[in-house]
Amino acid sequence: MVSTKEGVSLSDYQDVTGKHVIDELRVIAAHVEGRRLQNINSTAVGGGVAEILTRLVPLLRELGVLATWDVIKGDQNFFEITKAMHNALHGKPENLTPAMLDHYRATTESNLRQMDFHGDVIWVHDPQPAALIARRKQSGRPWVWRCHIDVSTPYKPVWDFLAPYVEQYDAAIFSMPDFARPMHIPQFMVAPSIDPLSDKNRELEPGTVERVLRKHGVDPGRPVLTQISRFDRLKDPLGVIAAYKLVRKRHNCQLVLAGGDAPDDPEGAAVLNEVREAAGTDPNIHVLPLPPFSDLEINALVRGSTIVFQKSIKEGFGLTVSEALWKGKPVIAGAVGGIKLQVINGHTGFLVHSPEGAAQRAMQLLADPGLCRRLGENGRLHVKQNFLLTRQVKDYMLVMLALDHPAKDVVHLN
Amino acid sequence: MVSTKEGVSLSDYQDVTGKHVIDELRVIAAHVEGRRLQNINSTAVGGGVAEILTRLVPLLRELGVLATWDVIKGDQNFFEITKAMHNALHGKPENLTPAMLDHYRATTESNLRQMDFHGDVIWVHDPQPAALIARRKQSGRPWVWRCHIDVSTPYKPVWDFLAPYVEQYDAAIFSMPDFARPMHIPQFMVAPSIDPLSDKNRELEPGTVERVLRKHGVDPGRPVLTQISRFDRLKDPLGVIAAYKLVRKRHNCQLVLAGGDAPDDPEGAAVLNEVREAAGTDPNIHVLPLPPFSDLEINALVRGSTIVFQKSIKEGFGLTVSEALWKGKPVIAGAVGGIKLQVINGHTGFLVHSPEGAAQRAMQLLADPGLCRRLGENGRLHVKQNFLLTRQVKDYMLVMLALDHPAKDVVHLN
Repeated sequence: MVSTKEGVSLSDYQDVTGKHVIDELRVIAAHVEGRRLQNINSTAVGGGVAEILTRLVPLLRELGVLATWDVIKGDQNFFEITKAMHNALHGKPENLTPAMLDHYRATTESNLRQMDFHGDVIWVHDPQPAALIARRKQSGRPWVWRCHIDVSTPYKPVWDFLAPYVEQYDAAIFSMPDFARPMHIPQFMVAPSIDPLSDKNRELEPGTVERVLRKHGVDPGRPVLTQISRFDRLKDPLGVIAAYKLVRKRHNCQLVLAGGDAPDDPEGAAVLNEVREAAGTDPNIHVLPLPPFSDLEINALVRGSTIVFQKSIKEGFGLTVSEALWKGKPVIAGAVGGIKLQVINGHTGFLVHSPEGAAQRAMQLLADPGLCRRLGENGRLHVKQNFLLTRQVKDYMLVMLALDHPAKDVVHLN
Repeated sequence: MVSTKEGVSLSDYQDVTGKHVIDELRVIAAHVEGRRLQNINSTAVGGGVAEILTRLVPLLRELGVLATWDVIKGDQNFFEITKAMHNALHGKPENLTPAMLDHYRATTESNLRQMDFHGDVIWVHDPQPAALIARRKQSGRPWVWRCHIDVSTPYKPVWDFLAPYVEQYDAAIFSMPDFARPMHIPQFMVAPSIDPLSDKNRELEPGTVERVLRKHGVDPGRPVLTQISRFDRLKDPLGVIAAYKLVRKRHNCQLVLAGGDAPDDPEGAAVLNEVREAAGTDPNIHVLPLPPFSDLEINALVRGSTIVFQKSIKEGFGLTVSEALWKGKPVIAGAVGGIKLQVINGHTGFLVHSPEGAAQRAMQLLADPGLCRRLGENGRLHVKQNFLLTRQVKDYMLVMLALDHPAKDVVHLN
């Protein structure tokens, strides 16, 4: 079982959200109190799911829900197979050989033997552990498949392999209606969330922000445009550089491209090289491949920015957008995936479809600090009301309540 | 029992609020389904409480909560006494004679004999029926005192008379923390709400708006400043006229002062005369005492306005503010009572402390249509998220849930 830090408590969140949000959690919690909510996923660290569970589990426990968190075990081969499966579910035509499917089944069998299924309700996250559903018949308790990825247009042969497992669950949770598939089980829509008290999002001293900027050679006295992303073509870092170059003709600004350098991802290294080449010798472009555990550094870079880009061409939910909005930054982002829920065009930021569009919006914002401030204020409020961890805690408890009275429905909680 | 219209249904509200709001109601409702929630108040028509119950009861029933609504009976003397009590609870030093208290007790006794207390939970609204709590011991079911008025600084002798009744309840609900008193029973904070589908708030054809304006001699082609209020000194209609006269020096605008003419209230008639005198012969000031059932007309007048005032000197919750914000109007309002929850200064409108301040903000708004639009958009969103009837329906169900696990706490639901 994964043990999670208990350092931050509900009362700390109350300072951020207001008393009414925490009081509502307590009222609902009293009706699911003492129930064992067992989470099962495929990794204890790295990635958004682990990041959310790390905080969600202790908050639920503080509310009286006996949340636990287990991680399946698999060898490198298994995770290569589930990565291919992940890509295929996102639409990439990637075939899984019979041998690969056999290994997926065998790893599931091994986890079924080793794992203790103690939950009153079992929450299985994503495709890797999905086949554990075989144990459901014995438990007689509700099993929920919590899917964080966009399975709306999967590569069909792989979905056809996974679907018979998924359809045995009592319900599925998707991040947004756009990501869901028509299925014969009840579906819940629950958006992911950011933790306002994590190192990536908590308030920082202005001195810290300035120190981090200067450490990377960024001048705090001039406008800073920033994109925080892995070096991945789908995040369009070259498009961001193209936009910056257009803006640079009019404004004495700087560009920061920061993100994990993913040393095990050959494509990541190739993209990083492309980005460095496109940046050339411009001393105002800062390409910063950051090591793991750089959360505080990323926090400071965003807080030190004038505008934040998330110019993705394809995107899961894209919580980097909420992370920037929460810090009161105007965001210029591609109109894809979950970004569209976070950036309300003209209200919390601007949605764009090209480097030229991004450049135009950036110039508009640099010329109008009042507009930057307004979008930033609206953005922070929008995140406060929709994308903080406390909201997801509430939604998960509401799903538990809803499972007491199951119906073959699509239930939107966001 | 009061029967309420069932014409508008949850699905109509879904079009306004989005599916997630209604789905959340249904999830919570499944856990209070079949419970009898008996509302008891002192009038079936007129005033905010009746206005809310008229729609709240059928919505709860549609959700499966067996809500009912009973009205106590009393003679004119009783209601004069409870009006004095109401004023005293608001702080006016008004003494109730022993004879008056006897009549209050006798009327309560008579209602106790006649009334059928069938609720699984009994919701008693405001001071008039508060003494019905005598029946609680027999019922063994939770009784809740739902107080809509500001009892934070009552005239002490009258509160001392009421308090022993109130303290027998299992819980109290106040509209906001500012209105509550320290008490030895659990307290819930639940803000009131407006019905987006009522005649006073629903969408209107532009033609209807223009027709109503012209009918009252208002020119739709020039700016219209409006205050909707009873003719009551605490709403400061003379301050509004003073503000208008300052604005008028710079802008070719008009002023509308519309509200119930309250023929049974001698003070109301006197204030109306003062208002007419202050308006003088200015053809651009329209003083409109409206008959009862003028909801559609009020709706149209607000929709036809450029700016809406609520320049109260003292205010209960002041839902006229939410009614204007919901229609996308910038609001200039006195910084008193519940208005402060609705007008977020500079974001959904402006809070003012004098006619000069009101005039200055009005001139700023008339010179900046973009600012008017922004405040209006923010205001509509703010009301959508906080002051629609569906939110109050949810909160009442959460109070029912919370009563299953009572604690001597102050629970904020807004």
